Amino acid sequence: MRNANRRIVLRARPEGIAGPEHFAEEPVAVRAPGPGEVLLETLYVSVDPAMRVWISENPGYVQRIEPGEPMRGSGIARVVESNVAGLAPGDLVHARTGWQSHPTLPAEAVEKLPAGTTAPTDWLGVLGMTGLTAYFGMREIGLVRPADTVLVSGAAGGVGQIAGQVARIEAARVVGIAGGAEKCAWLVRELGYHAAIDYNGEPDLAAAIARECPGGIDVFYDNVGGAMLDAALANLKLRARVVICGRISQTASAELYGVRNMGQLIGKRARIEGFVVTDFQHRFAEGRAWLAARMADGSLRHRVHELAGLEQAPEGLAMLFRGGNTGKLVVRVAD
Amino acid sequence: MRNANRRIVLRARPEGIAGPEHFAEEPVAVRAPGPGEVLLETLYVSVDPAMRVWISENPGYVQRIEPGEPMRGSGIARVVESNVAGLAPGDLVHARTGWQSHPTLPAEAVEKLPAGTTAPTDWLGVLGMTGLTAYFGMREIGLVRPADTVLVSGAAGGVGQIAGQVARIEAARVVGIAGGAEKCAWLVRELGYHAAIDYNGEPDLAAAIARECPGGIDVFYDNVGGAMLDAALANLKLRARVVICGRISQTASAELYGVRNMGQLIGKRARIEGFVVTDFQHRFAEGRAWLAARMADGSLRHRVHELAGLEQAPEGLAMLFRGGNTGKLVVRVAD
Repeated sequence: MRNANRRIVLRARPEGIAGPEHFAEEPVAVRAPGPGEVLLETLYVSVDPAMRVWISENPGYVQRIEPGEPMRGSGIARVVESNVAGLAPGDLVHARTGWQSHPTLPAEAVEKLPAGTTAPTDWLGVLGMTGLTAYFGMREIGLVRPADTVLVSGAAGGVGQIAGQVARIEAARVVGIAGGAEKCAWLVRELGYHAAIDYNGEPDLAAAIARECPGGIDVFYDNVGGAMLDAALANLKLRARVVICGRISQTASAELYGVRNMGQLIGKRARIEGFVVTDFQHRFAEGRAWLAARMADGSLRHRVHELAGLEQAPEGLAMLFRGGNTGKLVVRVAD
Repeated sequence: MRNANRRIVLRARPEGIAGPEHFAEEPVAVRAPGPGEVLLETLYVSVDPAMRVWISENPGYVQRIEPGEPMRGSGIARVVESNVAGLAPGDLVHARTGWQSHPTLPAEAVEKLPAGTTAPTDWLGVLGMTGLTAYFGMREIGLVRPADTVLVSGAAGGVGQIAGQVARIEAARVVGIAGGAEKCAWLVRELGYHAAIDYNGEPDLAAAIARECPGGIDVFYDNVGGAMLDAALANLKLRARVVICGRISQTASAELYGVRNMGQLIGKRARIEGFVVTDFQHRFAEGRAWLAARMADGSLRHRVHELAGLEQAPEGLAMLFRGGNTGKLVVRVAD
């Protein structure tokens, strides 16, 4: 086992939802670390909607993953061998493991976890890119204010579960949209969302939003795009901010949805803005400190959806686009 | 004649483009001014795309005009009788005349023109709401900066002709989109646009924009909406600002165009924002001073498209939506 690095590589570019049929397990020999490198044993890998973009024909602003290459991404790992000062065998790290069981990485791709504060998987979710995306998107792009009415789509997903709570902690009224009664009940009972809309049960989503946000929306934090964005645009308040964080309904869609309610922006003096969390890299420590403090005082809760076995990662990616996960999706690779 | 106030009233709500068939001339007796009122003789009335919104079934954020009511709007007039201190017979005023030849208005609807500085119609165009819309939209929403690449749709219209020049004066590179070779030549030769795209001659508008804005767009000042907005979204630069000023392609359209390129906003960290010029009312003096100074030094040019006779106003409104005007459209009511 020590001699094989199990890797999940792209086999064929998907059209539509990506899943097991687009990936293959392709072990390679473990590579001994050179100077400034560490050999890791991966414990968990992250599965994120953005991965579907990276493997598409035209990913736009990010580097494309080519067939034969392993999936990129974050993971939690244990140091096996180290040629890096400050990293010793046995240390737990947050690292750019990608979907690999025994990657050998340069020091800059590895960050030692603070000792024993929180579950290691939190560094992939609430304290990782996922939580930071929610924190900076809601605060810096959404400009959430006390008493705002905030709508979050994909509210039961990794980012959504945190985004709504950031708004709630900032004293906003928060409404989530999710698929299924169970997710909706969890949003309200566990995460403190003030209301939740089950899109499966709503033939007219704009009307459902109007019902749950009677005075309109100040901030729409959108992880879904498409028809959900259109329905939210029909319910904006004056000077509303729409945060385009993701568009999971469109990412794997062959035909793009056409958004018809753009005219609302004029009279409502409203704004739609996209962002990428890495633009806030210089402020990640601030974001992590804020999130960790709210976890510590009990005001910020979250769920990790765990799959077992590296080979489950492609199926996890498909789950994201079918709404199969609740909370942040990770894959356990080793104990 | 002194005894009749000629008014153009709404007869029937239009579907599609509004024109003469939706209006009627309905004279009423001139009303003598009460305390705090003036009686005016209208010289010019403004014709604006927003008027099509005001007469629609559901105008959104503005008060609807009902059948039988005269069209609202700005005009230039001469005071005939006055019960207002500071306004004397013969004074030229900028007033909320609407489409009426002899309105009687309260003092707050009337503003005396500064003596002899500029053509009276300039107070409907470049120094009126039209010019102020271009000024504040380009500067405060578009946040235009030196060396920006700026694209303006409806560039030969009342607002567009000024918006592009505001950007050019701020040292941006400015590309206009207009319908017809003549308008395009005028944009470049007279107004100093760096390039112009004739949408009539471009089957692939996104490709035409890519050709004329090779590095992409920093600011898109959009008066047209619909497919033009979509084509511009395909050509955004990092941190681009899209100013939704108007959407003349959609205002009178039965079926709304669906905008497909919203996903560009994420990777480009771009923003789409609507606005209404009256939000800047407290800064109109600043805007007018800026515009007047640039007219005086010759850097800001503009064209007024004049129709003769109040009865031409409805036809003027139709012209706006057919692209029949070049520059700011006004109707001369009296000499």
